[in-house]
Amino acid sequence: MSSRQPRILICGSILAGNLVWAHEEARQLFNGLADIVVMDSPNRADFLAGLKTGKRYDGIVGIYRHNTSADRIGVFDEEIIDALAETGTVKWIAHNGAGYDQIDVLRCAKKGISVSNTPGAVDDATATTALYLIISCLRNYAWAEQTLRQGVFKKGLNPGGLMMLAHLVHAFPMRVVYYSRNKSANAPEWCEYVDSMERLCRESDVLSLHVPLRDETVHLVGEKEIRAMKKGSIIVNTARGKVVDEEAMIRALADGHLWSVGLDVYPNEPLVNPRLLEFPQNVLLPHMGTENQDSQRCMEVRALTNLRDFLRDGQGKDLVPESRSKL
Amino acid sequence: MSSRQPRILICGSILAGNLVWAHEEARQLFNGLADIVVMDSPNRADFLAGLKTGKRYDGIVGIYRHNTSADRIGVFDEEIIDALAETGTVKWIAHNGAGYDQIDVLRCAKKGISVSNTPGAVDDATATTALYLIISCLRNYAWAEQTLRQGVFKKGLNPGGLMMLAHLVHAFPMRVVYYSRNKSANAPEWCEYVDSMERLCRESDVLSLHVPLRDETVHLVGEKEIRAMKKGSIIVNTARGKVVDEEAMIRALADGHLWSVGLDVYPNEPLVNPRLLEFPQNVLLPHMGTENQDSQRCMEVRALTNLRDFLRDGQGKDLVPESRSKL
Repeated sequence: MSSRQPRILICGSILAGNLVWAHEEARQLFNGLADIVVMDSPNRADFLAGLKTGKRYDGIVGIYRHNTSADRIGVFDEEIIDALAETGTVKWIAHNGAGYDQIDVLRCAKKGISVSNTPGAVDDATATTALYLIISCLRNYAWAEQTLRQGVFKKGLNPGGLMMLAHLVHAFPMRVVYYSRNKSANAPEWCEYVDSMERLCRESDVLSLHVPLRDETVHLVGEKEIRAMKKGSIIVNTARGKVVDEEAMIRALADGHLWSVGLDVYPNEPLVNPRLLEFPQNVLLPHMGTENQDSQRCMEVRALTNLRDFLRDGQGKDLVPESRSKL
Repeated sequence: MSSRQPRILICGSILAGNLVWAHEEARQLFNGLADIVVMDSPNRADFLAGLKTGKRYDGIVGIYRHNTSADRIGVFDEEIIDALAETGTVKWIAHNGAGYDQIDVLRCAKKGISVSNTPGAVDDATATTALYLIISCLRNYAWAEQTLRQGVFKKGLNPGGLMMLAHLVHAFPMRVVYYSRNKSANAPEWCEYVDSMERLCRESDVLSLHVPLRDETVHLVGEKEIRAMKKGSIIVNTARGKVVDEEAMIRALADGHLWSVGLDVYPNEPLVNPRLLEFPQNVLLPHMGTENQDSQRCMEVRALTNLRDFLRDGQGKDLVPESRSKL
């Protein structure tokens, strides 16, 4: 403790070890500038005592603060701010978080202690949470999942939506890679085409399926494809349950090769394999891919219009490929 | 039944009344073209018998089909297709759905019956489901919600993210309207500014909050604001619990003025008002807005960098407004 360097105090959670992620960055940032002291007081009285001359927090010039420190020493109220000011050395509180309502900033201003926060760093993560809550509220996903986990499957409808999904995820910081038998003419330019299922599996962290169920798509994703994926990957299926080899998928969940699966469809609906429920990280919906009013009305009208066109004009739209060339 | 018009058969679920949404559209589409007959057979034998000459489905030229009809008469397999072909009149099956795996389309092609589906109509809804599953798997939202409903609150961090949310929702077919004390210079051009909280409430179907907790933002959304919202609206809060008057919000849920709330934050965390759990349509997360590894590391480094800059240069970044002008 004979160092003449200034000292900074890391003031976070005792459980999380104060800094959780940025240990190496902290060492580099303060190398040659300051010594790092970790706040280890179990309560406020001990913390306040430690700030006195000659005690273990003596000579602190700045504080890294996380809200978890409140579990031990409480929020940074007038009493704590005044004690910090009393030291004559503390001049900066670098709060980790956008919201700094746990710091009496007006008292800090009065006592000449600057307070900074981390405004931009939280935007991605919080906006995603807000989006999740909006989608889940609008479409009742969380409710539907609760009922599914209680054994009640609400029967629903239909697959689709690859290129629409590409548009939806475009605002997220992720690459979109897709495979289909042929390169799509409608794909936005930011979507990268790969020419094999195996390459798609090797390159993806999340594999989302958008194929019809046909003989040749049964178990399109099997043991080989799943093992080609990175460890910790995720499979999302809103197409048809039988497109994935469920047994291979469950084996991969059990040995940790897959982190989780997000499923809207199952091989034997409305039965849900109970082993899927054993993984709390799985997200399991009762086939509600198309369950919103606009889509349902739109689908009914489109099917009826196809029939009307046939009656009126002798030819309707949306013929399935098998109907286009008569055998 | 003396009409000489062709007849079409609506073939869906007995429970849902076959068509759910498009009754009026059906009447208009087939006006003067065909009579509409609703399939009311309780089982396959009855359905097949009804197709015979002189029976109640005699003279059907086309069929609107929904997968829910399988509950009663089974999938459209060879037996059904052959019976339809036998009539000599049925020429078109307008399936409602993108996936038509419940129809033996090769048999249809062989027998001269055309099959159409509704490929585009499902894309929005299914892509949103896939996005929900991706987000929930990546961030463990569904798992966290299960633990919250079991009474375990995982403590977390911080608010933020308005303009990032605007980017995330931009691909959805929704308007983005925002209010803040001042118009944001960073707002994308598709975001509409309104100059009062009341107007924001009046115009929104979903109200998402992105404000810090300060004296003047406590109960920013209270009885008056909630009642200014449309009936059936949704409130999403990833900011701070006290920004919303929880009692007023629960009253509005109880009388149906609000359809649901999506909450990541609560006034007295980790306590969650048990009345919020009474509404299964609510989406309730244990304050995990910023709970992803990238954001957490980024926040730690940013807070530490602010402290380092102060030590090295005498001035750090991200000063909170209260620290910018010394009192």
